[in-house]
Amino acid sequence: MNIIIINGPNLNLLGKREPEIYGNEGFESYYKKLQEKYPDEKLEYYQSNIEGEIINKIHQVGFDADTAIILNAGGYTHTSVAISDAIAGVNVPVMEVHISNIYKRESFRHKSIISKECIGMISGLGLEGYSLAIQYFVNQKLINQQ
Amino acid sequence: MNIIIINGPNLNLLGKREPEIYGNEGFESYYKKLQEKYPDEKLEYYQSNIEGEIINKIHQVGFDADTAIILNAGGYTHTSVAISDAIAGVNVPVMEVHISNIYKRESFRHKSIISKECIGMISGLGLEGYSLAIQYFVNQKLINQQ
Amino acid sequence: MNIIIINGPNLNLLGKREPEIYGNEGFESYYKKLQEKYPDEKLEYYQSNIEGEIINKIHQVGFDADTAIILNAGGYTHTSVAISDAIAGVNVPVMEVHISNIYKRESFRHKSIISKECIGMISGLGLEGYSLAIQYFVNQKLINQQ
Amino acid sequence: MNIIIINGPNLNLLGKREPEIYGNEGFESYYKKLQEKYPDEKLEYYQSNIEGEIINKIHQVGFDADTAIILNAGGYTHTSVAISDAIAGVNVPVMEVHISNIYKRESFRHKSIISKECIGMISGLGLEGYSLAIQYFVNQKLINQQ
Amino acid sequence: MNIIIINGPNLNLLGKREPEIYGNEGFESYYKKLQEKYPDEKLEYYQSNIEGEIINKIHQVGFDADTAIILNAGGYTHTSVAISDAIAGVNVPVMEVHISNIYKRESFRHKSIISKECIGMISGLGLEGYSLAIQYFVNQKLINQQ
Amino acid sequence: MNIIIINGPNLNLLGKREPEIYGNEGFESYYKKLQEKYPDEKLEYYQSNIEGEIINKIHQVGFDADTAIILNAGGYTHTSVAISDAIAGVNVPVMEVHISNIYKRESFRHKSIISKECIGMISGLGLEGYSLAIQYFVNQKLINQQ
Amino acid sequence: MNIIIINGPNLNLLGKREPEIYGNEGFESYYKKLQEKYPDEKLEYYQSNIEGEIINKIHQVGFDADTAIILNAGGYTHTSVAISDAIAGVNVPVMEVHISNIYKRESFRHKSIISKECIGMISGLGLEGYSLAIQYFVNQKLINQQ
Amino acid sequence: MNIIIINGPNLNLLGKREPEIYGNEGFESYYKKLQEKYPDEKLEYYQSNIEGEIINKIHQVGFDADTAIILNAGGYTHTSVAISDAIAGVNVPVMEVHISNIYKRESFRHKSIISKECIGMISGLGLEGYSLAIQYFVNQKLINQQ
Amino acid sequence: MNIIIINGPNLNLLGKREPEIYGNEGFESYYKKLQEKYPDEKLEYYQSNIEGEIINKIHQVGFDADTAIILNAGGYTHTSVAISDAIAGVNVPVMEVHISNIYKRESFRHKSIISKECIGMISGLGLEGYSLAIQYFVNQKLINQQ
Amino acid sequence: MNIIIINGPNLNLLGKREPEIYGNEGFESYYKKLQEKYPDEKLEYYQSNIEGEIINKIHQVGFDADTAIILNAGGYTHTSVAISDAIAGVNVPVMEVHISNIYKRESFRHKSIISKECIGMISGLGLEGYSLAIQYFVNQKLINQQ
Amino acid sequence: MNIIIINGPNLNLLGKREPEIYGNEGFESYYKKLQEKYPDEKLEYYQSNIEGEIINKIHQVGFDADTAIILNAGGYTHTSVAISDAIAGVNVPVMEVHISNIYKRESFRHKSIISKECIGMISGLGLEGYSLAIQYFVNQKLINQQ
Amino acid sequence: MNIIIINGPNLNLLGKREPEIYGNEGFESYYKKLQEKYPDEKLEYYQSNIEGEIINKIHQVGFDADTAIILNAGGYTHTSVAISDAIAGVNVPVMEVHISNIYKRESFRHKSIISKECIGMISGLGLEGYSLAIQYFVNQKLINQQ
Repeated sequence: MNIIIINGPNLNLLGKREPEIYGNEGFESYYKKLQEKYPDEKLEYYQSNIEGEIINKIHQVGFDADTAIILNAGGYTHTSVAISDAIAGVNVPVMEVHISNIYKRESFRHKSIISKECIGMISGLGLEGYSLAIQYFVNQKLINQQ
Repeated sequence: MNIIIINGPNLNLLGKREPEIYGNEGFESYYKKLQEKYPDEKLEYYQSNIEGEIINKIHQVGFDADTAIILNAGGYTHTSVAISDAIAGVNVPVMEVHISNIYKRESFRHKSIISKECIGMISGLGLEGYSLAIQYFVNQKLINQQ
Repeated sequence: MNIIIINGPNLNLLGKREPEIYGNEGFESYYKKLQEKYPDEKLEYYQSNIEGEIINKIHQVGFDADTAIILNAGGYTHTSVAISDAIAGVNVPVMEVHISNIYKRESFRHKSIISKECIGMISGLGLEGYSLAIQYFVNQKLINQQ
Repeated sequence: MNIIIINGPNLNLLGKREPEIYGNEGFESYYKKLQEKYPDEKLEYYQSNIEGEIINKIHQVGFDADTAIILNAGGYTHTSVAISDAIAGVNVPVMEVHISNIYKRESFRHKSIISKECIGMISGLGLEGYSLAIQYFVNQKLINQQ
Repeated sequence: MNIIIINGPNLNLLGKREPEIYGNEGFESYYKKLQEKYPDEKLEYYQSNIEGEIINKIHQVGFDADTAIILNAGGYTHTSVAISDAIAGVNVPVMEVHISNIYKRESFRHKSIISKECIGMISGLGLEGYSLAIQYFVNQKLINQQ
Repeated sequence: MNIIIINGPNLNLLGKREPEIYGNEGFESYYKKLQEKYPDEKLEYYQSNIEGEIINKIHQVGFDADTAIILNAGGYTHTSVAISDAIAGVNVPVMEVHISNIYKRESFRHKSIISKECIGMISGLGLEGYSLAIQYFVNQKLINQQ
Repeated sequence: MNIIIINGPNLNLLGKREPEIYGNEGFESYYKKLQEKYPDEKLEYYQSNIEGEIINKIHQVGFDADTAIILNAGGYTHTSVAISDAIAGVNVPVMEVHISNIYKRESFRHKSIISKECIGMISGLGLEGYSLAIQYFVNQKLINQQ
Repeated sequence: MNIIIINGPNLNLLGKREPEIYGNEGFESYYKKLQEKYPDEKLEYYQSNIEGEIINKIHQVGFDADTAIILNAGGYTHTSVAISDAIAGVNVPVMEVHISNIYKRESFRHKSIISKECIGMISGLGLEGYSLAIQYFVNQKLINQQ
Repeated sequence: MNIIIINGPNLNLLGKREPEIYGNEGFESYYKKLQEKYPDEKLEYYQSNIEGEIINKIHQVGFDADTAIILNAGGYTHTSVAISDAIAGVNVPVMEVHISNIYKRESFRHKSIISKECIGMISGLGLEGYSLAIQYFVNQKLINQQ
Repeated sequence: MNIIIINGPNLNLLGKREPEIYGNEGFESYYKKLQEKYPDEKLEYYQSNIEGEIINKIHQVGFDADTAIILNAGGYTHTSVAISDAIAGVNVPVMEVHISNIYKRESFRHKSIISKECIGMISGLGLEGYSLAIQYFVNQKLINQQ
Repeated sequence: MNIIIINGPNLNLLGKREPEIYGNEGFESYYKKLQEKYPDEKLEYYQSNIEGEIINKIHQVGFDADTAIILNAGGYTHTSVAISDAIAGVNVPVMEVHISNIYKRESFRHKSIISKECIGMISGLGLEGYSLAIQYFVNQKLINQQ
Repeated sequence: MNIIIINGPNLNLLGKREPEIYGNEGFESYYKKLQEKYPDEKLEYYQSNIEGEIINKIHQVGFDADTAIILNAGGYTHTSVAISDAIAGVNVPVMEVHISNIYKRESFRHKSIISKECIGMISGLGLEGYSLAIQYFVNQKLINQQ
């Protein structure tokens, strides 16, 4: 199974950005652990600070067979109708992940514009959220194969 | 590890209540699967339609050692300051779970009053959300034990 | 036909509570008149001040054949997502009744959270509203039997 | 007793307008049934699409003795301060009726501007709502005569 | 000078409508007093309950020379963009008059949609407000003639 | 094809009303040009300042075969649920046209209550908007005939 | 009769402040004209930029017999609960006057906090508004003396 | 005099719940001090986490002679129309007490739904608020007895 | 202990201002009773209708040792950021007192801007509120001295 | 005449994205038809998912002579102040086009941030809207040349 | 050049008021440094806690030649229409200065009522903001003299 | 000291874009003057219309020693959570500058999403605002070096 992790703006700073909120581990380091943990899945990682490039990536993989997207759209989560439309426009399932609990933070972070187009959301569980999202897709595939 | 699943109002109807939203499986049946999947954890299941009884349950287990709560507060999610205060008042971590993607539904379901006191939220992944929540607590324990 | 009248919080005080709004007759006394007026229907009366017990009652009778509920949820009308979900979750039709005209009163009473799940509403017609609601269900049954 | 049924805009289309909401029966046909059902009352039916003509009709009958109005103001329900003032300005009781359950529909239909001046509201019970309204006035007269 | 008094919906009921708010005198009776008080002006009085007829009247006189309108739009004051556009579309000055103090009443009466197109407003001074409005136009003419 | 142009309140003043917004040409003069430009279509023009008469006109032509309505509801665009319901209640397609760009003007003009029932909107293109609307209906007919 | 004109903040600048809104005449000059026009009334004029001094003045004259206040509270009109309470706390009638039409200006000027405690409002008629307010009080006295 | 202290949800956790907000003393311990301080009054203490049981208790004592209620409704303060209605429905005076200053905390705590039915509120004075409330009732009784 | 009572606008009218809300006793008369009741405390009383003078007074005493302020800011309670800042800027504790229950009155009185800077609030207990506030400060001092 | 069609995010998916809303035809295919229909105009087509690239394009052509832009900003329509500023900053006229009727869809699509800077809007007429927009510019040029 | 620094309420406490926000230096001390830094300008410093006295000062210097005002209106920034009107009413330019970054603080501080009448704002740069404001006026004078 | 000026969308049009708001000078021309005025500082200038490229630039310089950013985010000021997060995520101080007084313009420009993460704001002082911002950083460095 192809699982594409797409990280949005400022997530390239992970590990050095506000560590009291986001922790001390960079995503590249964590991504290696994910690859080790799920050796049977074809993982891919993409990050961009540019809204339209995230849309381009969603379009690029969004019609592939046997594929799922894990999306942490960062600050665009709360403002981007265009990304939300991109998710609605493709065929593959998209899971929304947030590292921090967005409901413990400023009120403008409580509103996700993209949630209604995703299949679900995992929020507040740190980097572990990405792992649980992969787990979910893997389990669903097993169930569907039965 | 003690993991208490607390389900709120109308979740006793699972399986016969609006199956297009909540699916066809009753929670008791699913709970057995969970027990089989996590044989090393001490699972407990509690359901009530009464707001104050849910608070009582949170109080009862909320100061125990080596314990975590998985809470699906149902309709009280969107209205109960009292349950939110109960979570804030106890010591154990509480994970919020929703079976349906609450952001695909009526706008009054987009606002969770309890999220800000929970460690995180898993929403929209069906009954599988409970399993991922247990997984999370088990993994965290392993990490902490290292 | 089984017709269950469920009264919510403070309606046990009817007759001694704010008589300029609710009148001087207690519900038990009026209920006797209803039984006399509709001798062919199997009436039942339930009152509770506890939100979750109202939900329990709706669940208990909500899957019975040939049954209808008349619900005056009192103050929970304006706050209870959980009762609204209970109505949506059962099979029997539920009619919303209010003794006073809730639109002549404080603005927080103008919003009913449960109306969208009920078949209809009768408001402002005093205790007579319960009688008209029974009348409606009886007439509908006759029409359906034709 | 004189009972004047006043129907507002688009209710002349009843039967051919959005039948999934309003049903297949035209009001004239239903009105005949009402006349047969209440042979002792002096029924009158008036329909207009013009806001000010509805006000004129309310003024015309609103000071008569032994009279009541049943008003379905259609779309003006949600916008007309002028009709609301007309109801407040006359002496006869006015009952608000809606064929559909306005709370199941668009949010702008949830707010009735005229309710606060009416004695009560019957909503969502189809054409049967008109019959129950007549029933109410007839019953009240009997009670008052005792 | 031509001074046209245009009264909107329900003002034909003046004297018998809610006298605790609007007083006991009908407008026709008061209009005679106005004619006696301002014998040098050419007064005209028009009343309609129909929004569009009020617009028609404004159009009819709104391009005349040496003319002014005194408008009490009644309930349409708070809802009619169309009347507001009519005032903006004609050449003669329009003065807004309200018999009652609209700020002592329900909050929906605090907002006048037409005020921004009128030259000014006199509110709360009873029928005397019409007389002061005439006085104003007469004084202005004297000033302009100087 | 029958194409009915319905103009709402104050559009009879076109040419002399606020020419900096609406231009200097009256609608009758422009209507002649339209008739010359589309000699194969059966054009009809109707104008009223009365909300209910606009509804009457929509009802009158709204069930005809091979017919379309072009509606500029003027100030009623922003307030009339009743006209919106009329459009929803008939069978023929209705195109919303505004002469001025309503989004460059006061904020209360940014909200059209009728748009959701129309097939589309042309706004801000002056009288030319009516011509484009006719063009659209003519083109659609050609496409459908293919 | 004692008639006290109280002007609030910035009205001392009249004549040199924003003359396109407030005109070119200072209030002292206009006040002399008022004294000449109403020689039988005991006029008094008070101006202060200090909210509390306006309250002090209202208190000082507010329990006198045969007295009325004409109040233009300037910018405090839109913010001062304290002046509103002062008006409510005294016995004499208070008339609200505004030189400009406050509804043609910024939206924060559309809301008067003091109107609900005044007997009425005259707005938009320039300095002439003060004269009409005096006229009103004089007329009312004549009527009361009859 | 009978003085009933009713504590709502989570107040049973007092002393171990968020001590930086609520202090370190449990209510039972403080209650003993109150009994010592007011030996002449008949004090009673009731706590429940269930909204409807609080209503039941208010009903039970609310028609007794020479009785007053001190109510800290906890989280239900901000959500319970039903408790507010219960206070309105009984005869005895009810005083609202909050241990913390609810205005220093989250904005949803700034709104009390029950205040308008209570005689007054004491907020932010810690457990001492209960003592001052008793003092108030005792003083009032002395004043009334004079 | 120095206890400074500061009363804001219109409280100098106490006893003659709206007695149905504020009672018949002037504050000077009540202040004598307070002095008799608390002979061991050094009471001081200050009243001003001027917002800035209240700030001046708070500054003047706000850095004294062994001092507390009881503040009834009257109408400024709902509008004065400047007084709120003054309370935050000084060292002594400030207690907010309201004679009437501000939550039973107009909605603009439900919002206190200064509460968040005060230690607590006593509202609705009439003049007795001032006495309870003194009592509180005296008790606290005793506790602190222990 | 140069006419530049600029399509925003996700419009590259036209034909395979949500065909029930946007139809089955890709834009490239439709663009060929446009070129055939308007052989005398110099058409250009540009699409980008990146907000800033759309701004760059507007800047690039926005100062050319004899040029017009047709803009369908997709999801950026509802969020992009920057694109709105770009339109205001250039000299050429910009026409807003939407394929779907944005008023029939989610409420966040009802608000266009760019409309106030465009000359007009065509919405809901499918791909045909682009053709009508070209038609408009061509006609205007003819009129201007006369 | 005359440069008048006007400080509003509580700024006399600078240095001892909330030093974590406002720093430890009193304004008098800083003012001496300003005088030393700008020996060629005629500086003046005025502080008042009284809203109307600030208005008086603005009036007093607001029509002088070669003069500018630097205004830190403190808490009145967020509430005073009257000060805003005073700025609009005078001729000299007014610069708004805030010591703290008002956007990092409570939301009611994010809205300045006076900004729209000032030439610009400097916020969050500590006392240095006053110096930059003087610099600005001096530079502008040099530019104008060229 | 390194001072990076980052200009957002449409600021490349400076000098030819809306000169009545933004003046006639292009930024490159002004930038040369800045370099001359501050020869001791290492200035850098970057402009992009692409939100994500602005973020990239902030990341690139945001961890450098002895560096400060001056940011005019143009239209993204009012919409970009992602840029706000970028500022929060880096170490160097960021000063917000606006050429025009954003509070004199449309209301959507009154709200800056990035202000809360910047050290301060200079608004409305034209291009001079950039110079004052440099001045501020230079002065702060001098103070810190003392």
